[in-house]
Amino acid sequence: MSIRVTVWGENVHEQKSAAVRAIYPDGMHTTIAAALNAAGGIHATTVTLQDPDHGLSDATLAATDVLIWWGHAAHGQVEDRIVDRVIDAVWSGMGAIFLHSAHFSKPFKRLMGSPCNLTWREAGERERLWLTSRNHPIAAGLPDHFELENEEMYGEPFGVPEPQDTVFVSWFQGGEVFRSGLTWKRGAGNVFYFRPGHETYPTYHDTNVQRVIANAVRWAHNPAARLANPSAAPNVPVETALEPITQRGAKLHAPGEEGMR
Amino acid sequence: MSIRVTVWGENVHEQKSAAVRAIYPDGMHTTIAAALNAAGGIHATTVTLQDPDHGLSDATLAATDVLIWWGHAAHGQVEDRIVDRVIDAVWSGMGAIFLHSAHFSKPFKRLMGSPCNLTWREAGERERLWLTSRNHPIAAGLPDHFELENEEMYGEPFGVPEPQDTVFVSWFQGGEVFRSGLTWKRGAGNVFYFRPGHETYPTYHDTNVQRVIANAVRWAHNPAARLANPSAAPNVPVETALEPITQRGAKLHAPGEEGMR
Amino acid sequence: MSIRVTVWGENVHEQKSAAVRAIYPDGMHTTIAAALNAAGGIHATTVTLQDPDHGLSDATLAATDVLIWWGHAAHGQVEDRIVDRVIDAVWSGMGAIFLHSAHFSKPFKRLMGSPCNLTWREAGERERLWLTSRNHPIAAGLPDHFELENEEMYGEPFGVPEPQDTVFVSWFQGGEVFRSGLTWKRGAGNVFYFRPGHETYPTYHDTNVQRVIANAVRWAHNPAARLANPSAAPNVPVETALEPITQRGAKLHAPGEEGMR
Amino acid sequence: MSIRVTVWGENVHEQKSAAVRAIYPDGMHTTIAAALNAAGGIHATTVTLQDPDHGLSDATLAATDVLIWWGHAAHGQVEDRIVDRVIDAVWSGMGAIFLHSAHFSKPFKRLMGSPCNLTWREAGERERLWLTSRNHPIAAGLPDHFELENEEMYGEPFGVPEPQDTVFVSWFQGGEVFRSGLTWKRGAGNVFYFRPGHETYPTYHDTNVQRVIANAVRWAHNPAARLANPSAAPNVPVETALEPITQRGAKLHAPGEEGMR
Repeated sequence: MSIRVTVWGENVHEQKSAAVRAIYPDGMHTTIAAALNAAGGIHATTVTLQDPDHGLSDATLAATDVLIWWGHAAHGQVEDRIVDRVIDAVWSGMGAIFLHSAHFSKPFKRLMGSPCNLTWREAGERERLWLTSRNHPIAAGLPDHFELENEEMYGEPFGVPEPQDTVFVSWFQGGEVFRSGLTWKRGAGNVFYFRPGHETYPTYHDTNVQRVIANAVRWAHNPAARLANPSAAPNVPVETALEPITQRGAKLHAPGEEGMR
Repeated sequence: MSIRVTVWGENVHEQKSAAVRAIYPDGMHTTIAAALNAAGGIHATTVTLQDPDHGLSDATLAATDVLIWWGHAAHGQVEDRIVDRVIDAVWSGMGAIFLHSAHFSKPFKRLMGSPCNLTWREAGERERLWLTSRNHPIAAGLPDHFELENEEMYGEPFGVPEPQDTVFVSWFQGGEVFRSGLTWKRGAGNVFYFRPGHETYPTYHDTNVQRVIANAVRWAHNPAARLANPSAAPNVPVETALEPITQRGAKLHAPGEEGMR
Repeated sequence: MSIRVTVWGENVHEQKSAAVRAIYPDGMHTTIAAALNAAGGIHATTVTLQDPDHGLSDATLAATDVLIWWGHAAHGQVEDRIVDRVIDAVWSGMGAIFLHSAHFSKPFKRLMGSPCNLTWREAGERERLWLTSRNHPIAAGLPDHFELENEEMYGEPFGVPEPQDTVFVSWFQGGEVFRSGLTWKRGAGNVFYFRPGHETYPTYHDTNVQRVIANAVRWAHNPAARLANPSAAPNVPVETALEPITQRGAKLHAPGEEGMR
Repeated sequence: MSIRVTVWGENVHEQKSAAVRAIYPDGMHTTIAAALNAAGGIHATTVTLQDPDHGLSDATLAATDVLIWWGHAAHGQVEDRIVDRVIDAVWSGMGAIFLHSAHFSKPFKRLMGSPCNLTWREAGERERLWLTSRNHPIAAGLPDHFELENEEMYGEPFGVPEPQDTVFVSWFQGGEVFRSGLTWKRGAGNVFYFRPGHETYPTYHDTNVQRVIANAVRWAHNPAARLANPSAAPNVPVETALEPITQRGAKLHAPGEEGMR
């Protein structure tokens, strides 16, 4: 069975900027999804900010194995109730891939718990990505380095928690470096951040970039059943303790009472 | 110069429960602060939920090297604007120590980006903490294990991100285990979670527990100057790039313009 | 295509001890391999210490996707030249799973770079393994905890480097805890340590234990081509630098010379 | 009391190469130690490969809080029995800092358990180190980036285990990147690798480099007493178990017997 991917596109600059539209006439999300559908074993569809619920109904999230997020101009327009829903889906086991300017998206900042800031420059300079974790599944089939002739620069320090794997580090022509492929786990969900993809350059048409994203989908996919209630904090009564114990000391909670939140 | 610690106490059960008041007549926060003040090199004061701004004005946070947080019954009463302030202070370099039921406090959940859930049982059972990182500074002067005769049980899976160090793992009489001393870094701030401390038991009068907390204060303390704006994402203009480059391709941003959030 | 597993058995106590032979009449390695062959998608064979080259010729290692290692009484009899060969295979991409007393095997100690020590007690006490990483692939299909009624105790502190994932933590009847399922990466190879499996108890007949090992094989398997020379440190001549640079300053190395080791 | 540092210098190229002698007339180790002695709170001495026991007697290691290692041409001449001694000291709590070409030294490779390889080019090109962990103690007092106008290039993939902290990442003029400041823990010992320091350039006269090394000494220093036997694996008899248990099942070990290695 195919891995079910939902590509979330902000779809703002595609509407406003002729330069962006020239590169992505059907939207960046469409280009990304088309590449995934051609990669094999993946079934990708698209939703956008402008859709009802930003395209992320409970039913859509329940049927999404891996969510891909691209946003830039309109992070603030994403409703908090939808963000809550996305976070809950990740915690319950949905994979999540955040691309480029999604470093400042609401769901990514919520999952990281850190500022997620960086330095930047929009000069169309050369970026070269280097592999830092040999044979990592996200780098399958890729050479030790590959180049993007025109990209926006993102520079360190990148305000994210120390990752579980550093998969790529980028070199920039203007003199900066950036940890551009990083993995974390949050609840039962795998999370990957991938740096490239400024909207004024044809990055998502690049074969190596497409391969990284398809690999990341396979890596982030968790075949286990989604957790029903990923935040549950169940009480384990004394009577059912795995080892026999007896109640001692004072108690705040009456039997059967819920824990405090 | 002493490390400046602010102990934040929820101070609810001390008011409502005679059992808690019997153990902590001046409040749990007062007991914790007194132990720290006796430890040497630490100057600890206390604030509570009931204070204006919950005791956490900008000035107080700016003068706090390490914040200690204990809360249980009233997590929901902590105002979001104060939580934002605490998070910002951590990201700028303030250390933060979360005790026991603070696993579900707003600032801890925000810093972790994960559900922070667990299983629990209030039976006064025996807890034994085992050291899992030899010579870790947070375990300085402690034996390889120590016991608390009566504690609430917290059981795995604990819904937190994989830590940088696992310092302690707890054994419980009823059959559970728990990673009870964990470290992370968020922005420029060091974060430590320490499990023991249910309010109906005299845990914060225990010498080993007091030593862990004092050690954790020293570990979490960052002597560097606080970052002025921990979320800044400065633009680096082409003209000032460290290596000479020239502008290429289309631009979304006019010169001097702020980045999008 | 099936994942090719080689189960390495020390095969000493099976010969010397009637108690062990009663549980594992054909050797522990045979029981482990049989369970893997029944799991689906895995083709497991066995080799032992007593075979020429301990059963680990270059050809065998080249045809092994994942190596499983069980040893206890005869760690010192494993020849260093074979250990070198195993390490090189792991660095080039072979997965490696170390079981129980293999914590003190030569290849595990070499891969960890740490003492790998622990405390122990052979009393047939109860062990209960708790999941600490929700939906980790190594825990697929397993409940949040499972028990082994009779096991040897291993206690913390366990002298290994901080892992990338802590998958299981064990509770012991006698009062200890142990991080009993841990992952690392070394070169291109995935490494997993799994604690249970003392030879006087029927642990490898347990369904949950068998499932963990089969899951770990799938997790450790790296489908990428094995690296030809995992320790290569190639010189990149100035003339072929990716960005144009010119030679400056003094040089120790003549053109084309090998690096120093 | 001062932190006691021993700087280990290979001291080969200083004797053979006029270019190196011109920069480090008294040896690289002497320059490094002099900078540390000027930093405050550190007492540094030097030993070399040519000394009896390479200068690393048991007494010297016992009186060393942090060992700094620089080697390049003569890794193979370091005797294995001295390497064993160094490893044992690290596991027992001695800090260890490996500089530049020491990535291929015997003790570093032993502590990492991985190939420790990289790509390289000796062209005197520009290196720029970027901070990737805000307010990390090893970066205290340093700007977000600093430059070395002439350095040897080291490129990714760097064959080391995923570190606990990535403190610096380097940009190179010829197009490569490198994770140039990394931390790990092995046993009770803190380990730091720092990339710069090719012998034909004046790197160890650079103020920023000197500051990093002094900071790393303070970070690596473990004030706890050295462990007497860092590899001990003590038996815990049934009679002294922390919780009352009774012997069950078959036993391999007679009472009081040592464990197997």
